[in-house]
Order: sequence, then C-alpha cells, then structure tokens
Amino acid sequence: MVQQLDHYRTPPNWHPGAPWLVHTLWFCAGAPLLSARWLPGSAWRVLLLRVFGARIGPDCRLKPGLRVKFPWRLQVGRACWLAEDAWLDNLAPITLGDRVCLSQGAYLCTGNHNFRSPGFDLRLGPITIGSEAWIAARAVLAPGTVIGPGAVVALGAVVSGSMPAGAIVRGNPAVVVGMR
Amino acid sequence: MVQQLDHYRTPPNWHPGAPWLVHTLWFCAGAPLLSARWLPGSAWRVLLLRVFGARIGPDCRLKPGLRVKFPWRLQVGRACWLAEDAWLDNLAPITLGDRVCLSQGAYLCTGNHNFRSPGFDLRLGPITIGSEAWIAARAVLAPGTVIGPGAVVALGAVVSGSMPAGAIVRGNPAVVVGMR
Amino acid sequence: MVQQLDHYRTPPNWHPGAPWLVHTLWFCAGAPLLSARWLPGSAWRVLLLRVFGARIGPDCRLKPGLRVKFPWRLQVGRACWLAEDAWLDNLAPITLGDRVCLSQGAYLCTGNHNFRSPGFDLRLGPITIGSEAWIAARAVLAPGTVIGPGAVVALGAVVSGSMPAGAIVRGNPAVVVGMR
Repeated sequence: MVQQLDHYRTPPNWHPGAPWLVHTLWFCAGAPLLSARWLPGSAWRVLLLRVFGARIGPDCRLKPGLRVKFPWRLQVGRACWLAEDAWLDNLAPITLGDRVCLSQGAYLCTGNHNFRSPGFDLRLGPITIGSEAWIAARAVLAPGTVIGPGAVVALGAVVSGSMPAGAIVRGNPAVVVGMR
Repeated sequence: MVQQLDHYRTPPNWHPGAPWLVHTLWFCAGAPLLSARWLPGSAWRVLLLRVFGARIGPDCRLKPGLRVKFPWRLQVGRACWLAEDAWLDNLAPITLGDRVCLSQGAYLCTGNHNFRSPGFDLRLGPITIGSEAWIAARAVLAPGTVIGPGAVVALGAVVSGSMPAGAIVRGNPAVVVGMR
Repeated sequence: MVQQLDHYRTPPNWHPGAPWLVHTLWFCAGAPLLSARWLPGSAWRVLLLRVFGARIGPDCRLKPGLRVKFPWRLQVGRACWLAEDAWLDNLAPITLGDRVCLSQGAYLCTGNHNFRSPGFDLRLGPITIGSEAWIAARAVLAPGTVIGPGAVVALGAVVSGSMPAGAIVRGNPAVVVGMR
C-alpha cells in the first residue's frame, strides 16, 4: 500500500524556514516581482532576494523570469549567472559556488517522496553546484544532486546523483560523455 | 506530400466541447485565474474547475501555476495532487484515478497529428492515469498514454504508450527500470 | 581556467540588432503582449512581430504564450504554426521554411558558450528549420541545429546538429528512428 495521499502529513520537523508573514509576502509579492518577465534589471533582483534572506555574492547577474521557492534557503557565490526562467525549487537548500552559470529554464528540484511508503513521505534533497559549473538551458537536476566544480550539464539533460568535477554530462538519464 | 498546413481543417466531428461563451470565459478569465502563481489556495481552484465542468473528487490539492485546457474534459479522483505548473493540455479527455500525484511542470499532451497525411490530420489521444501513480516533475506524457495504477514516472521522463501497473519508468524515451 | 564570468565581455562585434528604444519597447511591452496567455488571436500577433521587424509569410497561426527574443532576427515562411509557449530564443537568427509546425513549449536555443575558454565566450548558432518540418511539443533544439525539410522531431526530443530531410528523430540525445 503506497501513496495514500489522503493520509499525507508534512514531517513534524519540517518548516518553510521563515515566519508566516515573510513567507506570505514572498509568495504573493516578492516572487512575482522577481520573476516578472517585462521588468529588466539584475541588481534589484539580487537586493530583493537578499532582503528575503538569500546569501548572494557580488557581481551576480539575475535575469527576468527567475523563480526561487524560498530565498532564505539559497546561497549563491560570486559572479554567478541565473538566466531567464531558471527555476530554483528549493524546499531544501540550494548552494551555488562561484561563477556558476544556470541557463534558461533550468529546473532544480529538491523535493522527493518515498514512493514505497504509505505516507508518500517527503524526502528533501539539497542541491550543490560547484564553482565554474555550467547547467545549460532546460536541464533538470534531481533532489540531492551534487555537481562537481567545472562540470558542464548539457542542454536538456536530466541529472541525478553526483557528477565529478569537470565532467561533461548529457542525455536523459544523463551520463558522463567527456571531460572539460 | 505532407503537412500542407494551409489546407488543414479541424475534423468535422471535433468540437471544443463547451458553448462559445463558456469557452471564451474560461480562456480569458478562468484559466488565467487558475494558473496565477501569486494566488495561493487550493479549494477555490477545485471549485473554479468544477464550475467549468471538471469532475474532481474530494480532498484534492491544486497548486498555483496549474494549467488546464478544457475543464469539461477533466476527471480527477479523490485525494490527488496537481502541482505548480503542471499542464493538462486536454483537447481530449484526461482521467486521473485516486491519490494520483502530478508534480511540478509535468506536461500531459493529448493532441497529435497524422504526420503522413497531407492534411496533417488531428489525432487526439486521451490520457489515463491509474490510482496511486506518480508523475514526477517535468515529465511528459504523449497522447494516448495509459499509466497503470501505482506506476512511477521519473523526473523529466518522456513517456508514450502504456506503462504497466507498479512500473518505475525513466529516461527519454522512457523505459521500465524497475517495479515499485 | 574556464568560465571566469567576472571577466566575461560580450563580443565586440555583437549587437542586439535593434536601436535601444526599439529593444526596450519590445522587452517591456511587445514581448509581454505577444506572450499573454489570456489574449486570444493570431493576426495581431503576426502584425506585432512584423512591426518589430520579423519577416512572416501569409497564413501563419500564432498562439498565446509564444515567446520571441528578437523579432528582427526571425524569418518565418508561409502557413506556419507557432503554438502555445513555443520559445524562440533567437539571439542569433531563426529561420523557418513554409508550413512548419512548432508545437507547445518547444524551445529553440541559439546561444552557446565556449566552455573551454576563460572568458566563456558567447558562441551564437542560428537555427534553420526546413519546410513541412514538425517540431513536436516540449522539444529542444540546440544552437546551430539544422532540421531538414519534412523532418519530425518527436515530443520532448533534445536535438543538436543537422537532421536529414524527412527524418523522424526522438530521444535525448535525439537520434534518427525512422523516415516519414
């Protein structure tokens, strides 16, 4: 017996990580502003995310359409690029090193479920991306993924697990096809 | 000679399935409201879809960003989860059993074309998903797909055809990689 | 040493291709209007793109949700269909022949980077799609892709390189699986 969604309970030790008012403000105002496609500008996006608790290094460039679930669970190094429609679905923490490039429409998923349990228990998996890694457009990273420094995840690749430093990975499921 | 789009005709027996006024109201007001990302709440989304003809069981949870083409061609069992940005492109009927989970950005496509005909004839393929199946984030289901009860479609998988009950499928094209 | 994003410079010979005012007008008003999901109608979308410099043949059908980066770098033949949420990310020119069908959520990517250079140099790759080709829903085309006339790119396929006329390609990475 699996996935009895009517009996699903959020884990007792889980919390969005911010007070209710902050969470609601982010959801109803901050997030829509951040992701507005018709509003140019990067610096104010960085500022907005920092106001809501994100730790973002200097010289980052954030593009319109960017989506972040919980800014207070986001850590970004220096000189990173977060492109249009990149979606950081960070129920669990997402950590980027320095000079990381997330391209258009990349999707970083941190929420999983134990699909063999009756309660369909939530299993969170933080995502860590090493410095100088490039996650190309429309790529998808599974919960718990670790991308080594300097790795390249190709266009549309679907990655889970750990990818070694400098690896070039592509495909669905993604496999290592070369070194940078 | 194929795909002469200038000579394309919608099939004579095809109809959106709702009166013009209802269809227009849904398109211009209902659908944008349903999919508004800055509006929290599930119960009113269920109600909205029901008002436009969807049959939705009790205890379902619908998230912001959800997209439904034709509510009047949607049938959802009890205690289902339809996550952010899940896109039910139901020109043809989509039917979910009970306790089905559709995760973020999943795309269910019911419209196909006979690509060997000059008229590029529309070929609709209903989609049916069995109870306790999980369609993970960013997965794509082709027209005519049947997902057996309890099956798991992995993150980003691209599925066509019929998947057996309890199967775990992944990849593009998706293949069975295990049993639940 | 690669991807020193803090030292990235746009190539000296690169330019958006339109005066600043036109570019800004497109970004803040034209593009959001084009992609508005709640606004029906095709003819005005064609007109809007033409006003901003796109060359579009007669009898084309453009759907809500369509996204175009630079209309002045878009050339579309006659009787083409550009479906909901198709995203033409044309930093470099995108050229469609006649009677081409781009389905829902297809993503055409023209921007690449030399990931082995310290400067992460921008490498643009125009995309060309031959007449009567069909790019199915959620497919992704890499920079520099050439799709031969009459080819079919299957649902969710991720394509790079050149695909021969009449080929049916699917998967990620996409391979030729048949002829039309």
